[in-house]
Parts: sequence; structure tokens; C-alpha cells
Amino acid sequence: MIGAVTEVLSATDFRAPIDDRWFDDYVVGETYEYGKLALAADDIVEFGRQYDPQRLHTDPAWAATGPFGGLIASGWQTAGLMMRMYCSHYISAVASLASPGVDELRWPAPLRPDESVRLRTTVLESRLSRSKPDRGIVRTGIAVLTDDDRAVLTGIAMNMVAVRPGS
Amino acid sequence: MIGAVTEVLSATDFRAPIDDRWFDDYVVGETYEYGKLALAADDIVEFGRQYDPQRLHTDPAWAATGPFGGLIASGWQTAGLMMRMYCSHYISAVASLASPGVDELRWPAPLRPDESVRLRTTVLESRLSRSKPDRGIVRTGIAVLTDDDRAVLTGIAMNMVAVRPGS
Repeated sequence: MIGAVTEVLSATDFRAPIDDRWFDDYVVGETYEYGKLALAADDIVEFGRQYDPQRLHTDPAWAATGPFGGLIASGWQTAGLMMRMYCSHYISAVASLASPGVDELRWPAPLRPDESVRLRTTVLESRLSRSKPDRGIVRTGIAVLTDDDRAVLTGIAMNMVAVRPGS
Repeated sequence: MIGAVTEVLSATDFRAPIDDRWFDDYVVGETYEYGKLALAADDIVEFGRQYDPQRLHTDPAWAATGPFGGLIASGWQTAGLMMRMYCSHYISAVASLASPGVDELRWPAPLRPDESVRLRTTVLESRLSRSKPDRGIVRTGIAVLTDDDRAVLTGIAMNMVAVRPGS
């Protein structure tokens, strides 16, 4: 169970709290960091058995002889860590509508057991909807980084976010 | 626990079994289908609490009043179902090297509790590596479909796959 409490790690963060944060609060160019989370070996194996049953995620003995010299997390579990921090700190708890998807999802390096990671978010684009002026789309550069600044996941997340009521 | 046994649903499948399948066996244009899997409401809530704590994934009572009129799975858990079928049937158990990532990941429609889904794979591109001639990259169109053919996830998966030894 991924239960760690995370916090803001960057010097700056949104001024608007997550439960009163709207489209207007996502300012292009702003970068924030949140963390940290880690996966125990058991977490990696449990997730792998359910969702990504390849031996490098489910079998520590085999993984030790495999291409990465040890167990590594499923890239989809690394995405889950990203999302956990994204929900806890970044995406509005009141204004987030559906997410259309993610572009250019990459796993540049493996995530190993007990490695702490943080999430770095950068607002890349914020654009009002033409057809529905009560909302806009926010494109966010995401990077999950180890303590030695190795990126284990990068991508571009998209979110539909409601504008502040009355604005 | 996602434990269902899945099977080949399409009329055709790879001729090479998954434990003797190599780069050469991924033929551009070939389409196969595998399934089925479903998520119980409890599976959705458990995953949501760990990896995507938004109320539409974790709180059935709130979700009933929310934008989708009920609980829906985290898009990352839907990706996990995709990966489960991808590992069980599609990606070689012996020749798969790292996955660089996924492009154009989309969640066009929500996945609700107890909805069965299947995976459709289409080989889009298969290209030998120039720098490492013992492997190639396979690009695969993926779609997770409900029984009424609603796509709940689409994307383009990339895999590095070893060529058949001695070929």
C-alpha cells in the first residue's frame, strides 16, 4: 500500500489551494515539485502480478540475472506514483473534468525498489475551450525524478479544467 | 486481484508461440484480439486509493452524483488491464527488451465496474535498429474495447524486440 504523505518540495507552489484552484490558476511556465514516494520490492511484485506479469517485475531471483540486474517497477506503476502526487498536489480537487490523455509517455530509466522519487510539473500550455467557454485545456510537462535526478518517467499530461465560477 | 484467465478472441493470432516469438514475427498490418477482463467496484476503489485518489475512483456515493453518474476506473488502471493482456498474449516472453514508452495515450470513454474489455492490437511499424542489428522497434496500435465496441483506452505502444537468434 502506497501510503506515504507527500509535500511541496519546490520553493514556490500554486497560490490557490487545491480545493479552490481553477483553470485560471495554471500559469504557463510555472514549475513545481512534489514528493516523495517509493515502492518496496513487495509493492512492485504485487502490482506486477496483477497488471504487468513480466519476470523483471514479479520474480526477484530471475530479475537479478535479467537485463537490469534486479527487480524494476512496471512503467505503469511508476505512472501510478506520478498520478498519486499529481492528485495530491497539482490537479484541482474541484475543477478537474476528464483527462483526454497523455502524450509522449516515456520511461527513460528503470525505477528500483526503495528509490524515492518526486514529481516535477511544468505548465506548458493553457487554452480556453472555444466550444465550451466554462473550461480550458491545460497541458503539463511531467517528470518523475530520483534523488540523483534520473528521470524514470516523462510525458505531457492533458486536463480539462473548469474556469473560476463568475470569472 | 485481477485474476481472470484470458484467451485469443480473434480468428487469427501469431503463429509463433509467445515463448518463441521474435522481432521477425511482428508483421505490419496484423490485428489480433485478446480478452476478457473486468474490474469489480472494489478493485477500482483499491487502485484509486493507492494511485489516483480522486473521488470518482474512490467514493461510490460521491461518484453517483459526479460527472459520470457512477464510479469509473482510473485511466491508469485501465492501462494496467491493457498491459495484463499485452503481457499474456502479445509481447514476446523471451525477446522483449525495454519499452521506450507510449504515444498518444487516450481515454475516450470511461470504464465502469464489471464491464468486460478486450485488447485489440495492430502492428503499425516494425523497424530494425541501425545501431544494434540484433533488435528492432515494434510500434503497435492498442485499443481496449467494451463488449459494445466502445474504446476506453487507445494508444501507440513501442517495444524493443530481439531478432530471432541466427536469423
